Amino acid sequence: MAVYTQLSSADLEQLIGHYDVGQLVSAKGIAEGVSNSNWLIETTGSGSGGARFILTMYERRIDLADLPFFLDLLDHLAAKGCPVPRTIHDRDGASFRWIGPKAVALIEFLPGVSVDLPSPAQAHAVGRVLAQMHLAAMDFPKTRANALGADASAKVLAECGAQKLALIDPALPATIAIAARIAADWPQGLPQSVIHSDLFPDNVLMRGDEVSALIDFYFACNDAMAYDLAVTHAAWSFAAGGRDFRGDVGAALLAGYQEVRLLEAAERAAMPILAQAAALRFVSSRAQDWLDTPADALVTRKDPMDFVRRLDFYAAQGPALFNA
Amino acid sequence: MAVYTQLSSADLEQLIGHYDVGQLVSAKGIAEGVSNSNWLIETTGSGSGGARFILTMYERRIDLADLPFFLDLLDHLAAKGCPVPRTIHDRDGASFRWIGPKAVALIEFLPGVSVDLPSPAQAHAVGRVLAQMHLAAMDFPKTRANALGADASAKVLAECGAQKLALIDPALPATIAIAARIAADWPQGLPQSVIHSDLFPDNVLMRGDEVSALIDFYFACNDAMAYDLAVTHAAWSFAAGGRDFRGDVGAALLAGYQEVRLLEAAERAAMPILAQAAALRFVSSRAQDWLDTPADALVTRKDPMDFVRRLDFYAAQGPALFNA
Repeated sequence: MAVYTQLSSADLEQLIGHYDVGQLVSAKGIAEGVSNSNWLIETTGSGSGGARFILTMYERRIDLADLPFFLDLLDHLAAKGCPVPRTIHDRDGASFRWIGPKAVALIEFLPGVSVDLPSPAQAHAVGRVLAQMHLAAMDFPKTRANALGADASAKVLAECGAQKLALIDPALPATIAIAARIAADWPQGLPQSVIHSDLFPDNVLMRGDEVSALIDFYFACNDAMAYDLAVTHAAWSFAAGGRDFRGDVGAALLAGYQEVRLLEAAERAAMPILAQAAALRFVSSRAQDWLDTPADALVTRKDPMDFVRRLDFYAAQGPALFNA
Repeated sequence: MAVYTQLSSADLEQLIGHYDVGQLVSAKGIAEGVSNSNWLIETTGSGSGGARFILTMYERRIDLADLPFFLDLLDHLAAKGCPVPRTIHDRDGASFRWIGPKAVALIEFLPGVSVDLPSPAQAHAVGRVLAQMHLAAMDFPKTRANALGADASAKVLAECGAQKLALIDPALPATIAIAARIAADWPQGLPQSVIHSDLFPDNVLMRGDEVSALIDFYFACNDAMAYDLAVTHAAWSFAAGGRDFRGDVGAALLAGYQEVRLLEAAERAAMPILAQAAALRFVSSRAQDWLDTPADALVTRKDPMDFVRRLDFYAAQGPALFNA
C-alpha cells in the first residue's frame, strides 16, 4: 500500500484538464492498491455539485495491453447496473492517458467501507452481486486468459521446489503434488464468463449490508464462474488465518449467489475441487512472494499457510459443504 | 508518508459513533504526514448532506502532552476566521480520543491542493494568511516552547560533529560554528505569538491563488513572529534544491505579510539572522536524520545541502533582501 509516484498539482491540473469534470479541488494520495498509485481526486464537476474520482497510475505487475480489458469491463458492468465504478473517458474518448512513461486512468469514486469480519447478511449481498456481475459480463466482447489458474499454481509451486517450501513450513511441500493433481483433474466445460478472481473483502465496498462497489478488477479474466464463487468463498468464509471456518457466512454467500444464478449440477459437483484450487492459487502466490521477499524487508509477507489451512478444510469436507 | 496502523471498519464505526457526525460512509487511508497515520473519512453528516474529515492517529514524534495545544489552537484560529481546519469534539467535548494505546483526533477536511512551484500571487496570499494567523494566535492561552530554535540547531549540529557531517558533504562542518554564533547572537525581544514554524508549500492547501487551509500545526510553538516569516520565506522562495532564489516569490510573501501586519524596525533588522537560523533549523534536522537513516533504507533522505545553499544565500544578501 503506497503511493509510488509523486504528482505535482501542475501535473494533476493538466491531467484533469483533459476530462470534462471541471476544475481540480483536492487531491490526496491514498494508501490502497499494491501495484498501483492511487489518488482520491475532487473536482468542481461538470454539472452542479462537485465530483470525486480515483486516479490510478499503473506502476507494475499490470500488462498495459490488458488495460482496455479492465477499463472497458468497468463500463460494461456499470452500464448493466452492476455496482462497479465507471471509467471516466477523456475528451477524446480515451479510457486511459499517459503521464510521462506511466498510464493513468480516472475512475468513478464510489462510497462504502470494506468490512473485516463480514456478517452472513453481508456475504449474502456479495453473493448476489457476484452472480449479477457474472451474468452481466457474459456478453463482454474482450477476453483475457487466466494467468493464475490451476496450471499456474501447480507450476509455481513446482518451481519453488520442496526444499525451499519446507523452509517456510514443513506442511508446504505436500501442496506440490496436490496442485499437480488438481490441475490434471481440472473440470472441463463449466460455464464461463468474466470473473473477478480476487474478490476479498477489501475489494468490496459496503454500506451496512449493501454492496456499494466491487473494485480492483486487475485480476479479472475469462474462466469458470463457479471458480470465482469458490475464490470468493475461500476469501470470505474464514477467520483467524484460515483456522476458523465461518459456516454461516459461507452458506449465506452461496445462497445469495444462487438467488441470482443457480449453479448447474456440474458446477455444484466441481465446487470441492474448485475451492481447493482457489486455496492453492493463494498458497502458490504467497509462497512465491515469501521466497522472493527478503526476511528483513519492510513489507509484511503474507503467510501461505493461511490458505493451506483452507485447502485442508476443503479437502476434508467434500461436496456437502456446497449443497446446503 | 504512510499509514502505520490498520483500522478495521468496525474500529472506525465505533470511533465515529462517539461524534455527532452521522454514520460512516467511506474511509481511505491517505499518504500524508510523516509522523501520523491519516484517513479521509466521509460520513452522512449531522445535518443535511455528507461531511468529510481527516482522522489522524498520532504514531510517534509527537508528545501527547502537546495535543491539547495543537488541537485547541486549530479551534482558536478557526473561530477567528483563519483558514485552518477545526477540531471536531466528541459528544463529551473531548478533542481527542484513544483507540487502544494510540490517540486519535477528528479534524475538519478542507479542500485545496498544495502547490509545488508557487507563483508570486500564491506567495502573497500565504503571507497575508500567515500574518492573520499570527495576530489571531496572540491571545491563545496555551503555550508550547520551541524545541527546534537556534539553540537546538546549534546543539544538534555540534552533536553530529564535524567528522560525520563531512561524510555527508565537505561544506557541512562549517555550519557548526555558524549555528553557534547565531544562537549566541539571537535577537531578543522580538514580538511573539504562536508560530506555525513549518509552513512549507505542502502544508498549505490552495484553490487557485487563494489559501484554503494551513495544515499540519504539529511544530507550532511560541516564538518570534518574524522567525516564522523567515522560515516561510526559506520554504517558499527557492527552487532546485536551494540553488534558484525566486526573488519575486520572496518579495510577494513579504509584501503580503506586511499588508496585514507591518514588521517592526527591530524585526526587519533581524530578518537576515532569522532567515539564516531558519535555514539552519532544516540543515540540522536533515543532517541528523541523514546520519540516523541507513543508506540502504527505503526512506528517501532529504539533503541538508538544500538548506546550506539557502543559508549561504541569506548570509551573502544582507538586509536589503527584506526591505523591498
